[in-house]
Amino acid sequence: MNKGLPRREDGFSHWYTQVVNKADLADYGPVKGTMVIKPYGFELWENIKESFDKMIKETGHVNAYFPLFIPKSFLSREAEHIEGFAKECAIVTHTRLKSNEEKGVIVDPDSKLEEELIVRPTSETVIWSMYKKWIQSYRDLPILINQWANVVRWEMRTRLFLRTSEFLWQEGHTAHETKEEAEKETLDILFLYKKLAEEYLAMPVITGIKTEAEKFAGAEKTYCIEAMMGDKKALQAGTSHDLGQNFAKAFDVKFQTKDNREELVWATSWGVSTRLVGAIILTHGDDKGLRLPPKVAPIQVVVIPIFKSQEQEKIIKTYIQDIIKNLKEQKIRVKEDWADNTPGFKFNKWEMKGVPLRIEVGIRDVENHNIVIARRDTGKKEFLSKKDVVGNISNLLHDIQKNLFSQANKFMNENTHHINNFDEFKKIIKTGGFVRCGWDGDPKTETKIKEETKATIRCIPLDENAEDLKCIYTGTIAKHEVIFAKAY
Amino acid sequence: MNKGLPRREDGFSHWYTQVVNKADLADYGPVKGTMVIKPYGFELWENIKESFDKMIKETGHVNAYFPLFIPKSFLSREAEHIEGFAKECAIVTHTRLKSNEEKGVIVDPDSKLEEELIVRPTSETVIWSMYKKWIQSYRDLPILINQWANVVRWEMRTRLFLRTSEFLWQEGHTAHETKEEAEKETLDILFLYKKLAEEYLAMPVITGIKTEAEKFAGAEKTYCIEAMMGDKKALQAGTSHDLGQNFAKAFDVKFQTKDNREELVWATSWGVSTRLVGAIILTHGDDKGLRLPPKVAPIQVVVIPIFKSQEQEKIIKTYIQDIIKNLKEQKIRVKEDWADNTPGFKFNKWEMKGVPLRIEVGIRDVENHNIVIARRDTGKKEFLSKKDVVGNISNLLHDIQKNLFSQANKFMNENTHHINNFDEFKKIIKTGGFVRCGWDGDPKTETKIKEETKATIRCIPLDENAEDLKCIYTGTIAKHEVIFAKAY
Repeated sequence: MNKGLPRREDGFSHWYTQVVNKADLADYGPVKGTMVIKPYGFELWENIKESFDKMIKETGHVNAYFPLFIPKSFLSREAEHIEGFAKECAIVTHTRLKSNEEKGVIVDPDSKLEEELIVRPTSETVIWSMYKKWIQSYRDLPILINQWANVVRWEMRTRLFLRTSEFLWQEGHTAHETKEEAEKETLDILFLYKKLAEEYLAMPVITGIKTEAEKFAGAEKTYCIEAMMGDKKALQAGTSHDLGQNFAKAFDVKFQTKDNREELVWATSWGVSTRLVGAIILTHGDDKGLRLPPKVAPIQVVVIPIFKSQEQEKIIKTYIQDIIKNLKEQKIRVKEDWADNTPGFKFNKWEMKGVPLRIEVGIRDVENHNIVIARRDTGKKEFLSKKDVVGNISNLLHDIQKNLFSQANKFMNENTHHINNFDEFKKIIKTGGFVRCGWDGDPKTETKIKEETKATIRCIPLDENAEDLKCIYTGTIAKHEVIFAKAY
Repeated sequence: MNKGLPRREDGFSHWYTQVVNKADLADYGPVKGTMVIKPYGFELWENIKESFDKMIKETGHVNAYFPLFIPKSFLSREAEHIEGFAKECAIVTHTRLKSNEEKGVIVDPDSKLEEELIVRPTSETVIWSMYKKWIQSYRDLPILINQWANVVRWEMRTRLFLRTSEFLWQEGHTAHETKEEAEKETLDILFLYKKLAEEYLAMPVITGIKTEAEKFAGAEKTYCIEAMMGDKKALQAGTSHDLGQNFAKAFDVKFQTKDNREELVWATSWGVSTRLVGAIILTHGDDKGLRLPPKVAPIQVVVIPIFKSQEQEKIIKTYIQDIIKNLKEQKIRVKEDWADNTPGFKFNKWEMKGVPLRIEVGIRDVENHNIVIARRDTGKKEFLSKKDVVGNISNLLHDIQKNLFSQANKFMNENTHHINNFDEFKKIIKTGGFVRCGWDGDPKTETKIKEETKATIRCIPLDENAEDLKCIYTGTIAKHEVIFAKAY
């Protein structure tokens, strides 16, 4: 156990906050609800970002940048959309400050804007107002644009990375000729999200579709990836929306089809955010702190020299020189820690920060042509002959990546329950876990279950099988097989 | 001349707007003063960003992210700082919208914030409020943090990339133990900016220091890189500020020194922005459109097949296959244009978009084992035997990069005038160009010259030699040799 870090079982939420703090990932900003992403946390985000950016570029998407400010009237054009975001907006009303003898600096009332501006909570409206200009004919389609940006949704109950007023994300906004093409795009992206989560973050996810109650404000259908966190609660890790023609209608975006008709454009939008950093912590963290999947870890290997004199220090420095050089040539992200602290302190520090592999080198290791290598995922230590180090590290990293996924996957499977009895349901929801069961398809049933248990339908899984299922609550014939859980 | 593009000499400003539009770089956003960066323009920015991000990481800097919103009171803590930014702020005052029967959606007056928030025009204040928490001892220093972010400075006279309410930039904010270390950092960054401008954007710059009147609001000293645009006006392309202890004072950030004293922390900040995209256009553009430096060009080589039948198309496709493959293996950014347009249309299009090299392949070229290669910088065309293509392209790109720099450098030198007569001064400022001359160091002289000629002191160049110089305006002994010009 790492000094000062509470155990997860003594309060998962407190444990989470402490890991974020002690691993130096983020801090609270001066304005309530805001977050400062510290360099170590940001590098983690950069690695996630780069991985996904590559994926979307390889599938024909391009990046662009749209303005932060949205005229109030734009947000109102799509009825469900404004309904969904009205209560959590940051609204710009003025553009100048001025000095005031009594009160110091005040907002200059003469600078009041004619129309208030909303700081984007998401960019559908501003982007579709531009697509209106850009799209005339089928020749202009598809548009496959993504942007990496900050968005604001007013929020007072802050939880770093998981719930903050401002967060960073990517938002894809595509425009298509046909309903089928838009639906295909929505699903293609969903599977890219699954790939990102599973292959990079080592986080198994369930792919599914949201119920009406849970879908995005303005979407026809919302697909999602849902993951199980270490406390058995669900976390929505990414969403991909089939927007139908809703935003094309709101912004009057029509195109001339190949056969010379005029039709409304079909749309999708999709996003993942800095919430994924929180997801990594909550999925893989243990009582010693973070455990980072090698593919996105800012530091993959940390080298801790153990010495008692300057002479020993020099010997070790020489000894590890070619190892370091070789690892760097393999593009392995390696860091040496020569700081003036005890080895024990350093072990704790880098375990807290979740570095996948630790190399320890003492003077005896030099004599024996060894190094000691410790895995963060299993805690296992082993000797490795120096000549084998370079060839082995990348295999070990690969193995850790796989093992973290297996562990999380096993955990999710063990805590996913196929049941058909509401008493059992309540018991499981109380202690934590996913319930996979029948639902009659009625939003009222969904609401009642939520009120009684705080569990929500996380999704209708794509591989649902409602045959022979009864609704867990009403006992009538199930319309869908769904996943219920308490969620972040 | 490209169809529809005005000539530069017939109105440089109009030419600029048209290039931005026709090369598909950016568009006006729906809110006055805002900009949409379109995919081609954004890719250019991404390339600039990646180049500089690599440089700062190699010099020990790390990225982080600080909140968009700054409490009004923070901005007011540094007197010059608030003075500098008060008149161009976007101010958030409310956090909810609500329905109103008469007026539709209105701002909910009950959601008024106790303290208004300023959308960051720059982040010194919010960052130093955090440094206050993070810095206690010399052991916590230096902090070498950078962020890539959007900032807002209210602006009604929009010029895309050059002057917009919101723009993208990087802002470095460093904290140091000593004045000397901070000063060194400020200059180190200045020279990285010079390197970025000259080696990547092929844009020669003058390094210098700003006068009191032109320095950053809150800085002790502002260093800058200044470039000459195609209309002989100056453009400030990047600034690096020695902030002294001003922000440490404003936010009470003290540290324990090695010898156990308490001292205020020393600071720097520095930034370059999407304005650099504008600088590339204005430096290298010609009457056919953009000319992009290969190192940052989204597309380095465009391949235009010329065919009259499907059979010919097929033959050419096969013929160029290995060329394309080989260029991609060399990480050369190559695009084939198989669109259903005439070769002439495509030539114009890709010239407008500034692609450094064009490969043309017709059926006769296939027969002769040739390709035709056209340089965007010189307009020269030549035959290249197919077997020589692959080896030659990267040399050609290298040569274009160098040539664009040489052309711009020659242009700047030819239009920089060392004079000591105010009548001549006025003549030159009127027709365009840099004047390098003496200045008595008096801000009043600076103001008078500005009022009479609209020229400002762009900088006191680092290599100034004021010896024997007289002030261009007052005729008294010059305190500094300076560069005067009209500026963007």
